[in-house]
Amino acid sequence: MRWCRFEDGDHATYGIIEGDRVTPVQGEPWGAYTRASTSRALDDVRLLVPVIPPTFYAAGLNYRGHVLEQAQLHGTEPAFPPRADVGYRANNALIAQGEAIVIPRDATEQVQYEGELVAVIGRRCRWVAEADALRYVFGYTIGNDVSERSWQRDDRTLFRAKNSDTFKPMGPWIETDLDPADLEVAIRLSGREVYRYHVRDAIFSLQQFIARTSDYITLVPGDVIWMGTDGPTENMHDGDVVEIEIPGIGALRNPVVKER
Amino acid sequence: MRWCRFEDGDHATYGIIEGDRVTPVQGEPWGAYTRASTSRALDDVRLLVPVIPPTFYAAGLNYRGHVLEQAQLHGTEPAFPPRADVGYRANNALIAQGEAIVIPRDATEQVQYEGELVAVIGRRCRWVAEADALRYVFGYTIGNDVSERSWQRDDRTLFRAKNSDTFKPMGPWIETDLDPADLEVAIRLSGREVYRYHVRDAIFSLQQFIARTSDYITLVPGDVIWMGTDGPTENMHDGDVVEIEIPGIGALRNPVVKER
Repeated sequence: MRWCRFEDGDHATYGIIEGDRVTPVQGEPWGAYTRASTSRALDDVRLLVPVIPPTFYAAGLNYRGHVLEQAQLHGTEPAFPPRADVGYRANNALIAQGEAIVIPRDATEQVQYEGELVAVIGRRCRWVAEADALRYVFGYTIGNDVSERSWQRDDRTLFRAKNSDTFKPMGPWIETDLDPADLEVAIRLSGREVYRYHVRDAIFSLQQFIARTSDYITLVPGDVIWMGTDGPTENMHDGDVVEIEIPGIGALRNPVVKER
Repeated sequence: MRWCRFEDGDHATYGIIEGDRVTPVQGEPWGAYTRASTSRALDDVRLLVPVIPPTFYAAGLNYRGHVLEQAQLHGTEPAFPPRADVGYRANNALIAQGEAIVIPRDATEQVQYEGELVAVIGRRCRWVAEADALRYVFGYTIGNDVSERSWQRDDRTLFRAKNSDTFKPMGPWIETDLDPADLEVAIRLSGREVYRYHVRDAIFSLQQFIARTSDYITLVPGDVIWMGTDGPTENMHDGDVVEIEIPGIGALRNPVVKER
C-alpha cells in the first residue's frame, strides 16, 4: 500500500495512492482512518513530507564505503561504529518532493547528497527483539541527508552541517509492503547516476537499530529512522537536480539552488 | 503570565495559571485562543510537559564550570565552545512535573542531573539579530538534562546518554514575563542544595543562540532551547527527588527510580 501526505486547502491530509489517483483519508495511516468517497489525480496534488516525525532518528555512519570516504575527507583514521547507536536530525530541515534544497550563502562548495532508505514506525514499542522488529515498521520512504562537509568536520554539533533549513528532503511517499534488506538505492545528479548500493550491505540492519534503540527509548508511530548512505558523495551546485531512487518505492527528486 | 498544559479527559489542553487556579483555553498560547468560562484548582489537574516541541534544541556545553567538570570526568583538555552552535535532544525522553526519572537497568552509578533554564519560542523567525532575539521568545520553563556519564563518554551518539526515556523532565509551566539574564538556578537533591548559579554566567546568551541558529534554521512556535548547566553534578539514586528551582518560574520536581 502506498501512503502520501498532501496539501488539502489550508491543512495537510494523508492519502492512499492507487495508480495515478489519490484517495484522501480522515485519520492517520497507523490508526483508525476512513477513506473519502472520491479520489484526485496524483498529478494535481502538492505532496508534503509524508510524515512529521515525533522524533527524527538517523543511523549516520552505517556503510563501510561511507565511513572510509568520510575518514579520508576529515583526515582521520576510519572508525567503524561498534554498535547500532542511533543519532538525530531535526524537523525544521524537512522538505517534500520537488521542493528546493537551498545552499546557504556562506556554505563552501562541499554541500553533498546522501541517499538513504527511511523506515517509518507504525506501532508503539519498547524492548523489541531483532526477530520481531519489522512488525513495528509501518513502511518505507526515501531521504536525502544533505550535508555541508566543512561544517560537519569543524562545528561542535551538526546543527547547520546536517540541519540547515531544506537539508532533509524526504518522500515522495511511504510504501508499506517491502523487504528492507532487498532494496537498492540509486543516486542521480542532474541525470547522471553517481552511485548505486544495496541496503543489505549496511553495517547494522534496521532490525538491529530498532532493537538497540528500543532498549532505552519508546518508538512511536510516525517516528522515522534514516538508515545511512554508502559510497562517495559529490558536491551539488546551483541548478542541479538530485534524485534518490529506490525501486519498489519511487524517486525523491529535488532541485538545488544557491541562496543569494 | 503563566501557562501550563494539563490532562483534560482524554486529551491535552493548555491553561492559564492565576494563583492556585487554572483556566483551560482553546487554542495555543502563541496563537489565537479563548479562555473557558470556568477554572479549576491547580492541585486537581495533572500537569503535562508544557509543550511538545517541533524541534528540541539544547545548548549543551555553555558554562565554564560545567566544561571544566566534564573535561576532568572524561580525562580530556577542557574545550570551550568557540561559537553558539546548538545541539539536540529528543521528544521521547520528555516527562512532566512529578513523573519519575527511570535509571535504566544497565546504567552505571553515574546518572546525573543538569538543571537548566529553557526558552520557548513564540514567533516564527529566521535571520534574527541578537538585539531583537527576545521578541521571538514566548516564555521560560525549567529542564533537567539527565545524563548517564559513561555512555556520554563512550557511545558514538547521545541516544541513550541523554535521551533514554524519562531523561528530559521539563516544566512545571511556562512563565512569560522574565528577563533571562536576571535568573538564578538552584539544584536540590533530596532536599540538599547541591549547586546554585546565575544564568548570566553562560558562555553564550540566549540572544546569541537564537541569532546564530536562525542564520540557518527557521525557529517556530513551541520550539525549545535548553540553555545548559553550570558547576559539578552528582549521581542520583533510587529514591532521590531532584528539584530544579528558578525563582520567578517555580520548581521542577521529579523522583528517581531504578528500573528493575
